[in-house]
Amino acid sequence: MDAPLDLLLEGAAEIFDGEGILDADTIGVRDGKIAWVGRGAPANIDADTRRVSAKGALVTPGLVECHTHLVFAGDRADEYASRAAGAGYLEIAAAGGGIAKTMRATRRATLDQLCALALPRLDRLLDFGVTTAEIKSGYGLSVEAELKMLRAIRQLDATHPIDLVATFLGAHSVPPELRGTTTGRADYLDIVINEMLPAVAAQGLAEFCDIFVEQGAFTLADAERLFKAGLKHGLRPKIHAEQLTCNHGAALAARMGAISADHLEHLDEAGVEALAEAGTVAVLLPGASVFLGDDQRPPTAALRAAGVPIALSTDCNPGTCMTENILLMLTLGMSRLGMRPIEVLQAVTMNAAAAIGRSDSAGRLMVGRAADIVVFDVPSHRHLPYHFAVPCVWRVFKGGELVRSQAARA
Amino acid sequence: MDAPLDLLLEGAAEIFDGEGILDADTIGVRDGKIAWVGRGAPANIDADTRRVSAKGALVTPGLVECHTHLVFAGDRADEYASRAAGAGYLEIAAAGGGIAKTMRATRRATLDQLCALALPRLDRLLDFGVTTAEIKSGYGLSVEAELKMLRAIRQLDATHPIDLVATFLGAHSVPPELRGTTTGRADYLDIVINEMLPAVAAQGLAEFCDIFVEQGAFTLADAERLFKAGLKHGLRPKIHAEQLTCNHGAALAARMGAISADHLEHLDEAGVEALAEAGTVAVLLPGASVFLGDDQRPPTAALRAAGVPIALSTDCNPGTCMTENILLMLTLGMSRLGMRPIEVLQAVTMNAAAAIGRSDSAGRLMVGRAADIVVFDVPSHRHLPYHFAVPCVWRVFKGGELVRSQAARA
Repeated sequence: MDAPLDLLLEGAAEIFDGEGILDADTIGVRDGKIAWVGRGAPANIDADTRRVSAKGALVTPGLVECHTHLVFAGDRADEYASRAAGAGYLEIAAAGGGIAKTMRATRRATLDQLCALALPRLDRLLDFGVTTAEIKSGYGLSVEAELKMLRAIRQLDATHPIDLVATFLGAHSVPPELRGTTTGRADYLDIVINEMLPAVAAQGLAEFCDIFVEQGAFTLADAERLFKAGLKHGLRPKIHAEQLTCNHGAALAARMGAISADHLEHLDEAGVEALAEAGTVAVLLPGASVFLGDDQRPPTAALRAAGVPIALSTDCNPGTCMTENILLMLTLGMSRLGMRPIEVLQAVTMNAAAAIGRSDSAGRLMVGRAADIVVFDVPSHRHLPYHFAVPCVWRVFKGGELVRSQAARA
Repeated sequence: MDAPLDLLLEGAAEIFDGEGILDADTIGVRDGKIAWVGRGAPANIDADTRRVSAKGALVTPGLVECHTHLVFAGDRADEYASRAAGAGYLEIAAAGGGIAKTMRATRRATLDQLCALALPRLDRLLDFGVTTAEIKSGYGLSVEAELKMLRAIRQLDATHPIDLVATFLGAHSVPPELRGTTTGRADYLDIVINEMLPAVAAQGLAEFCDIFVEQGAFTLADAERLFKAGLKHGLRPKIHAEQLTCNHGAALAARMGAISADHLEHLDEAGVEALAEAGTVAVLLPGASVFLGDDQRPPTAALRAAGVPIALSTDCNPGTCMTENILLMLTLGMSRLGMRPIEVLQAVTMNAAAAIGRSDSAGRLMVGRAADIVVFDVPSHRHLPYHFAVPCVWRVFKGGELVRSQAARA
């Protein structure tokens, strides 16, 4: 018989494994890994096995947050107020706001300051059940400041229970010092490709290479150049595309092997087909639309029909969605995007893991995997998106260790 | 000199008093009441004065939640899933869903069961900073069951720190047993007016009399009959109106002295004028629209221009907005309704208090008032709606007693 279990989480109302509901109510953990899943108690428990009740509760894998910009200094609360009062994008930019404002504060901050500012954001993600998260650079926009951001992500990964995945987003925006000349954008992209990328790759600071394709940001041709260079350095493409206009960035990225295409509010049918053919994950960010008061929706039904895996994420960032509340996105996935309860849960577990190259290690509850487990104070998977924006997390285990514990309420 | 203070809350970054930002950073409390507001420390403190730091934080009055249906049994998570999958109102009703489903479960529950189910919802409201809340009946739809709901509210008020205000909403829906006949609606309204109202009034179980005016619910003429009868019994009108259609219920209610008109997504210009003339509070419920995926907005700019006081509320209910997260409504007030930071804060303090007849006792921080105070872990009033749907409550005081305390994160 196997060695005794360290932990037995028993009596769950439902266990969602990342893909569907298991015929099981109990999970056994040994050495930080899931060792047993079934009904009732297994034989290999003894007096040292810690028994934790999940009675009446929903058990899921640790949630996976696959698209954030949560390392930054400063904030943009003033800009948010201006926006609600009617200020447009250009007006905000002219007043020194937008990404440039966060860039200035982030450049000024030290690496340790960036980490200190990001830690409470990670703590809040953990409050909401997240045990694996992606973070992008993109507020440095200089060699030194982009590397500083990525080093901060590495330092945070070493100190916080949440496992972090880093994406290099040097091509987030053209920095102000290079704007206003005819060659500014190309000059900056040269720096991204010839200086930043080699340094990022040499130091192993990121796994993915992302770009914001949009009017006022970067073009399709820029994305193609960047992705080619990134692939040479071993960084797989990701893309911010089709957010404000249909710019065909998602299809380009898919054809070049992108692991995910993100935003997609204006994705067309050809884009859907390209994602389906390439197996690229569609990362939808409904919180950003709601935060900005925008009614445009991505074509969720077409994505589903084409078999594109759909992930949901907070887009946590200081300008267009200042939240760590990933549970809110489950409800928005249903109400705004017409997704089903199982689909929104897959979208923050299995599919979110696929969007950041963690299909083999996160987003699933299965024997042999790390015991990253959330116990939610709701009686079924249907009740999690139904309980709108409320942090009904009861327990979070990371590698079998209890890292969050709240009083039960339901 | 006055007697020493019991509590000194000092060093606040901002103090919002329900109307605006005070030139003050410190609040003194004695005998459960606010005794002093100013800068620095007052003279009348001694060794027994408990000093609590609000350093870097926003201090506000206890929030006022002015429109909930949070006493109920059962839930409607299945119906929510059906709705996201495309089921319409009629389909849900035909399957036994909607208000009738909650009514059946609520009728079956005992008074004590209703209280036990409502207590965690009140606890969550308190988690989000609410110290005064309104609750409506309306899931009983029989004399016995409506009185049971109102008695549950009274019992909850006696046992929970949140001060409760009860509204009689017998005219929420025609119960199934009286539907399908030509006189069913009128027969039920007779019961509401001739049997329920006198009992509610005689036992002092509610202050307000509410009705849902909509296709499939009640008519303008029904509302007029009910309000006349309610006023005779001393119950001031409230109304659910203009939610799905422009039905002129808000104007009628305003002319009859309603304290508030709620929902108002389809309110017309004449309705805005009627509210302004009567001084009726407009209670906007943007969470319900988002929960249901509906893009229709109430005419907030016209309401502001006409000088109508605007309140925001969760509409916490099992069918169309299952949430206790009142902070979410601040962000939605800005992003969906174009309100300013100060306006959304007034909307859950001063104006929400006005919507439930508590202008003299809740929603304001001023000397002589009960010390219902929230300390938020954000550096200014602008940061509260900006931090989207995140429970950034640090401390809640009710009558000077600390009833919630969280670790600081910011």
